[in-house]
Amino acid sequence: MADRTKAVILIGDGLGDRPVAELDGRTPLEAADTPTLDSIAADGECGQMDPIGPGVRAGSDTAHLAILGYDPYRVYTGRGPFEALGIGMEVEHGDVCFRCNFATLEGELKLEGEEFSGAKIADRRAGRIASGTAELAAAVNGMVIEDVTCLVKESVEHRAALILRGPGLGPKVSDVDPHEEGVAPHAARGEDEPSAKAARILNQFVLRSWEKLKDHPVNREREQEGKPPANVVMPRGAGLAPHLTPFAEKYGIAGACVVETGLIAGIGRYLAMTVPEVPGATGGMDTDELALARKIVEMLEGHDFVLCNLKAPDLGGHDGKAQQKMAAAQKLDALARYVLDHAPGDLHLAVTADHSTPISFGDHTGDTVPLAIHGPNVRPDGVQAFSERAVVGGGLVRVRGRDLMPILTNLMGVQEKFGA
Amino acid sequence: MADRTKAVILIGDGLGDRPVAELDGRTPLEAADTPTLDSIAADGECGQMDPIGPGVRAGSDTAHLAILGYDPYRVYTGRGPFEALGIGMEVEHGDVCFRCNFATLEGELKLEGEEFSGAKIADRRAGRIASGTAELAAAVNGMVIEDVTCLVKESVEHRAALILRGPGLGPKVSDVDPHEEGVAPHAARGEDEPSAKAARILNQFVLRSWEKLKDHPVNREREQEGKPPANVVMPRGAGLAPHLTPFAEKYGIAGACVVETGLIAGIGRYLAMTVPEVPGATGGMDTDELALARKIVEMLEGHDFVLCNLKAPDLGGHDGKAQQKMAAAQKLDALARYVLDHAPGDLHLAVTADHSTPISFGDHTGDTVPLAIHGPNVRPDGVQAFSERAVVGGGLVRVRGRDLMPILTNLMGVQEKFGA
Repeated sequence: MADRTKAVILIGDGLGDRPVAELDGRTPLEAADTPTLDSIAADGECGQMDPIGPGVRAGSDTAHLAILGYDPYRVYTGRGPFEALGIGMEVEHGDVCFRCNFATLEGELKLEGEEFSGAKIADRRAGRIASGTAELAAAVNGMVIEDVTCLVKESVEHRAALILRGPGLGPKVSDVDPHEEGVAPHAARGEDEPSAKAARILNQFVLRSWEKLKDHPVNREREQEGKPPANVVMPRGAGLAPHLTPFAEKYGIAGACVVETGLIAGIGRYLAMTVPEVPGATGGMDTDELALARKIVEMLEGHDFVLCNLKAPDLGGHDGKAQQKMAAAQKLDALARYVLDHAPGDLHLAVTADHSTPISFGDHTGDTVPLAIHGPNVRPDGVQAFSERAVVGGGLVRVRGRDLMPILTNLMGVQEKFGA
Repeated sequence: MADRTKAVILIGDGLGDRPVAELDGRTPLEAADTPTLDSIAADGECGQMDPIGPGVRAGSDTAHLAILGYDPYRVYTGRGPFEALGIGMEVEHGDVCFRCNFATLEGELKLEGEEFSGAKIADRRAGRIASGTAELAAAVNGMVIEDVTCLVKESVEHRAALILRGPGLGPKVSDVDPHEEGVAPHAARGEDEPSAKAARILNQFVLRSWEKLKDHPVNREREQEGKPPANVVMPRGAGLAPHLTPFAEKYGIAGACVVETGLIAGIGRYLAMTVPEVPGATGGMDTDELALARKIVEMLEGHDFVLCNLKAPDLGGHDGKAQQKMAAAQKLDALARYVLDHAPGDLHLAVTADHSTPISFGDHTGDTVPLAIHGPNVRPDGVQAFSERAVVGGGLVRVRGRDLMPILTNLMGVQEKFGA
């Protein structure tokens, strides 16, 4: 038997794109100068990847779950759990989790029967409150309603996450956040009995959050400064924290996530992977991609597998900036160069994206993304460059995100045989 | 975010083929002069499509269900419901439906215990009876047996459809039609309790149909003319009318079906799509393909999506006429030209087939069909012509019928994101 190798998946977040007029019909990846990625393609095996399935518009969370081998259609009931994970909360299987905004409510909130009344949302983001949310979150954190504990933690600006932890809770809960201003919060409804319990608790939580926050010192100060108070928590995006087999148990190897965004870090932690801090990794265009690269190499010392996500390409896609996205692709190229040059021992390096974020669309699309796998055990296929179209005709043809870990663990020589 | 576009799927019925000796090994599509289809391929993104799955011989009904995004393995229990829909019957979720023949029975039919006796099928098609079936269907339509209503409507020649509508009916019912002559009808059997109820009702229906039809004026007249009487209804092909989410609810867009055959019109109506009459569309080689094209353009004014099926290519395939199938491909080309020239606003146009009907085989086969998608958001891939083999190497590679709607709604910019 050959020696086992290690493996790295390098994900350019939102890297896939469509032809861009200002680039003469090329994609940013086609137009960018990426000699390392091209050499990876030329020496490796290439193809297209549907992160979830053909045409399906993937989120970063669902795509990363799929790429790590977990079926998002089975495990993903909503963004809440991943949002909570992303900001460092400890999420447990069975928690019902929500994304929240601190918002500004005008009036005297009442919960009568099954409706909120007496107050309207004046600002869904409380003036994009920039400080004090840690104190506000602390004021509403830890409430116990019936037999359920409500855990709250602040994220950036007006954002926060809420976990309902207790017996018999379901995730099919409608949003309290009305997604518009000038109206009362919507009382949550549950689609089934466990979800109805979660909805009942959630409505109580919202009412009490207002009671606790309306006269909070942070808000008194904001009002004195003429700023809208952050006097209520508006939950949305309910999701049940799923049971996910830990990565090491699923694959029999130790894995790490070297990532910049809380959402993907949260997924890594939920899978009990190592998720190190990476000083210099900002998640922006100013990120130090070589800091990420050095951390990958460092992680490879004690782990068989590292997933790395570079957020930068997604930003240009969302903002419609082709030149910026080209620069981000070049950051990915530099990152890959460092990893190839410094990896200890034999390595399979897969380069791909979690989804496309085309310049022309400004949001995630369901187009395929390019995939190239480089390393000692692949069958090079004649593809000469790394881009959405250059990989067409490669030996990997067209696979799905969920195929990638089986493909890699096969190349690594660490996969159990199925059968005899 | 970019603007939404509209989309058209143009289906050449049975268009796919195999190499034909008299065409020097070319397929009819390869041999035909189809400059518009070729330009769609050249400017678009291409690949092969398995309407159901690799190698699976698709019917027109199952293929259209799949292409519209409904899993035929889940929803299709038999042709009955689609036959009934195809002749304009109102089918409801839960109905158990059958294809039927008016047939000629000799003897005195009895139902003793669980077997038919006393009579034999002399002609399964009642001499391909050409007129009078509306009166015959009316004579047996509306019978109530136990708590089940029996609805019957004539189709062309000796064909008809039967709906059993009532509580607790199942579709796993064997055929009464013995599929041969000179034997008694087979008493239906049910595989489970609901199907046993349907079988019991069905057998009673068959017996009563003979009682009502044997002396019917239409049959007396036929006998005077020396023609075989259509004196019994022979059901086969039981199927349960499935629950299908309406198209508009499934995709959030309004859809229309511009089609020639009752079967596909019935599927469109069942999905609550708009199914307009198309004067001049005959379903034959003499069809006015530009009438179909004009109707597509008209439908695009009020709908986001139009599926069009041109029946002509299938006819040459079934009849083994290569030149005729080439001419049918050229009709499809003209149809596509008109749509491209007259579509209002941005459009994604997908051209494909629901299955292959090779000249050399004379029936549907499970070969792949070509697929080309043209429009503002695709990644052109270097394919230069539209045919079974010219699309190999295209960017779509090889997808399934069920992938087409996700791929299109992604390109159209109307698909919800899965995840965050």
